Amino acid sequence: MQSQPDPRRVLRDLRELRAKTSVDGGAQRVAFTPGWTRAREWYSNLLAGLPLETRRDAAGNLWSTFHGRSSRTLILGGHLDSVPNGGWLDGALDLLAGLEVVRRLASEHPEGPPLTVRLVDWADEEGARFGRSLFGSSACSGTLDLDAARTLRDKDGLTLPAVLAEHGIDLERLHDARRELDQAAAYLELHIEQGPVLLDLDQPLGAVLGTFGVERHAITFTGQAAHSGSTPMARRHDAFLAAARLGQEVYPIAQRHGGVCTIGSCATSPGIPTSVVAECRLTLDQRHLDPAALAAMWTEARESSERFAREARVQVRWERLLRIDPAPFSPMLIDLADAAIRDVGAAPIRLPSGPLHDASEMVRAGIPTAMLFVQSLHGISHNPLEDTREEHLELAVRALDRLVRRTLDHLSD
Amino acid sequence: MQSQPDPRRVLRDLRELRAKTSVDGGAQRVAFTPGWTRAREWYSNLLAGLPLETRRDAAGNLWSTFHGRSSRTLILGGHLDSVPNGGWLDGALDLLAGLEVVRRLASEHPEGPPLTVRLVDWADEEGARFGRSLFGSSACSGTLDLDAARTLRDKDGLTLPAVLAEHGIDLERLHDARRELDQAAAYLELHIEQGPVLLDLDQPLGAVLGTFGVERHAITFTGQAAHSGSTPMARRHDAFLAAARLGQEVYPIAQRHGGVCTIGSCATSPGIPTSVVAECRLTLDQRHLDPAALAAMWTEARESSERFAREARVQVRWERLLRIDPAPFSPMLIDLADAAIRDVGAAPIRLPSGPLHDASEMVRAGIPTAMLFVQSLHGISHNPLEDTREEHLELAVRALDRLVRRTLDHLSD
Repeated sequence: MQSQPDPRRVLRDLRELRAKTSVDGGAQRVAFTPGWTRAREWYSNLLAGLPLETRRDAAGNLWSTFHGRSSRTLILGGHLDSVPNGGWLDGALDLLAGLEVVRRLASEHPEGPPLTVRLVDWADEEGARFGRSLFGSSACSGTLDLDAARTLRDKDGLTLPAVLAEHGIDLERLHDARRELDQAAAYLELHIEQGPVLLDLDQPLGAVLGTFGVERHAITFTGQAAHSGSTPMARRHDAFLAAARLGQEVYPIAQRHGGVCTIGSCATSPGIPTSVVAECRLTLDQRHLDPAALAAMWTEARESSERFAREARVQVRWERLLRIDPAPFSPMLIDLADAAIRDVGAAPIRLPSGPLHDASEMVRAGIPTAMLFVQSLHGISHNPLEDTREEHLELAVRALDRLVRRTLDHLSD
Repeated sequence: MQSQPDPRRVLRDLRELRAKTSVDGGAQRVAFTPGWTRAREWYSNLLAGLPLETRRDAAGNLWSTFHGRSSRTLILGGHLDSVPNGGWLDGALDLLAGLEVVRRLASEHPEGPPLTVRLVDWADEEGARFGRSLFGSSACSGTLDLDAARTLRDKDGLTLPAVLAEHGIDLERLHDARRELDQAAAYLELHIEQGPVLLDLDQPLGAVLGTFGVERHAITFTGQAAHSGSTPMARRHDAFLAAARLGQEVYPIAQRHGGVCTIGSCATSPGIPTSVVAECRLTLDQRHLDPAALAAMWTEARESSERFAREARVQVRWERLLRIDPAPFSPMLIDLADAAIRDVGAAPIRLPSGPLHDASEMVRAGIPTAMLFVQSLHGISHNPLEDTREEHLELAVRALDRLVRRTLDHLSD
């Protein structure tokens, strides 16, 4: 006979975690700090009494395994770590909803579920202290660059290797964590949306299509300084003029391809009212779920910038700041996520994720992956104001449970 | 019988002044500093032996008067002061060419010219030390704001009143200098162009139409910060988007009206690659010779900014940084300047002046005014590289002399 999860227990757990690890209303659980350690101790107590084998891997991720009749594994993930003064739901909802699903499974399958189910608390998803997000999951997927990680320092100058060592983690052996994924057949995660899409649509839940790929560049136009009074318009080499034209052009490019883009910063030099701008530097952040569309957005922006530079008689150069490949989720699991959302009486909405998640690393590791999003109020996260309606949180726990049930059914066929 | 000026003597004087007051090739004659005082001592020696009455007015301007048969006065102006590390011609050419014309007049009219002719070395045209340009000429015209002047400090914190007092000038009596203009019938000045127009046209000389009026504003667009990944394009309030559209629009506005404009600076906040721009601040400098056209340029830019703000769903506010009225020169004297240019075998070109000059203050004082421009190499001034071809300097001295002759003839009729 089927058991049911108890979503109100998840709310109680979340509130208790908030009470234990918040200051001034904000979550203070930055990875590799005492607040995070306290949160993990509290979480470990919640696991007592469940039929789970719990241990930490080589990268500090905390795995709790419910051995099933098969060693093929369904992984449920989340993260207790937060940004400084963060929200109460980001990462913690994922883990504690996953725990509730495991409780339900333990009640329904005292002899063990059909597949092995593992609940993982990823280490340092946020990268708030050392600037390297998805730390633990990228160690597992093998995409973590050890050479880069070796040189990271926090704002007090402490190195990542030294801080890891304090927590019993050897940086040189991080990639040993890869073996945790050997038996993985699927990865699932519930997360708050952190954006306004579901709120605008007035819908509680969404099936996530994947996480956006990112092309981030600095674009520098170089013209010539000239006096604003004595230089005729036709004689100018105005770097701002070309930059402003590109600023207009990249938005329709993104919209044409169904992606998003942002010019986040514009800096001018000499930057005084009486001189034509000699140098103008923009940052352009372009995102898309499809690698070919993302590449096309980038190419079209570059070609436009060269045309505008020619027309304004200035130079342009591009410098890549960041590149992240898109991580499209499993079409089969997305279908199951739709069905799970319908199971709880909500409309099946599909949407991409702008922010990265540990799920992106599971895609990179070749594991079929899906995520559920639950509506965020105010479209705000990484902030004490981050919130979601109580009834939506309960619906989300039930939808995750349905998705796990459907996934296990599917994988057991 | 007509005497002729000796342009080569002007070149010798200019070179001697450069040798006496330059360091590392740049002129060091900032007003109210020892370098400027030395330049004036050297200049005073040049006046010896000429039939001139020389004295300083209440604002520190140095007037040398050649009394004529009438007390109606033609004024020739220039300035010995320079910016720090300035060029050898800016201001000094004007004064020393004027001196050569006076020498010619003294030789031709031992009994005195038909009108009184006064040569003035304006005090602190550049405003390099206290940031108030056209100091001496605006004291004469009456536009100098004593309340503002009282509070000015140099970079060492010394106040303008204290430094003036060291030079025997009482700030409270600056406007006594107004009486110097009582008999003024015309004002003439020769200056290097400081821009590229004559160089581009391959012409040595130009008749100046007047100095541009300036409308200078800071324009701040205010939208809303939002995550570059999780915020759909249609949901954004992007301050940069509106600013970039205005950046495109102000140029055709200026060109349609025959003026110039410059967006000299663009600053974005928070100014990070991962956030939509919440606030974008531009500086816009618009210039035109005609007050109505300048006002129209400003109005059209403001209306455009409001339209773009509405369309991008952001706010916009304007803050005036500077307003200078256009100073159109005397049509009659401009005609005489054309004729003088033709007298020396050059083509009569007319052009506006972007930079302000002491001549602008003479327009404000209601005195019929004109200027001659001589071609600048490289379009550069305020720099040791400032230069003009020797043959063009000689032509310019001869043209100024012709313009003085024609103006005296005209005023004596």
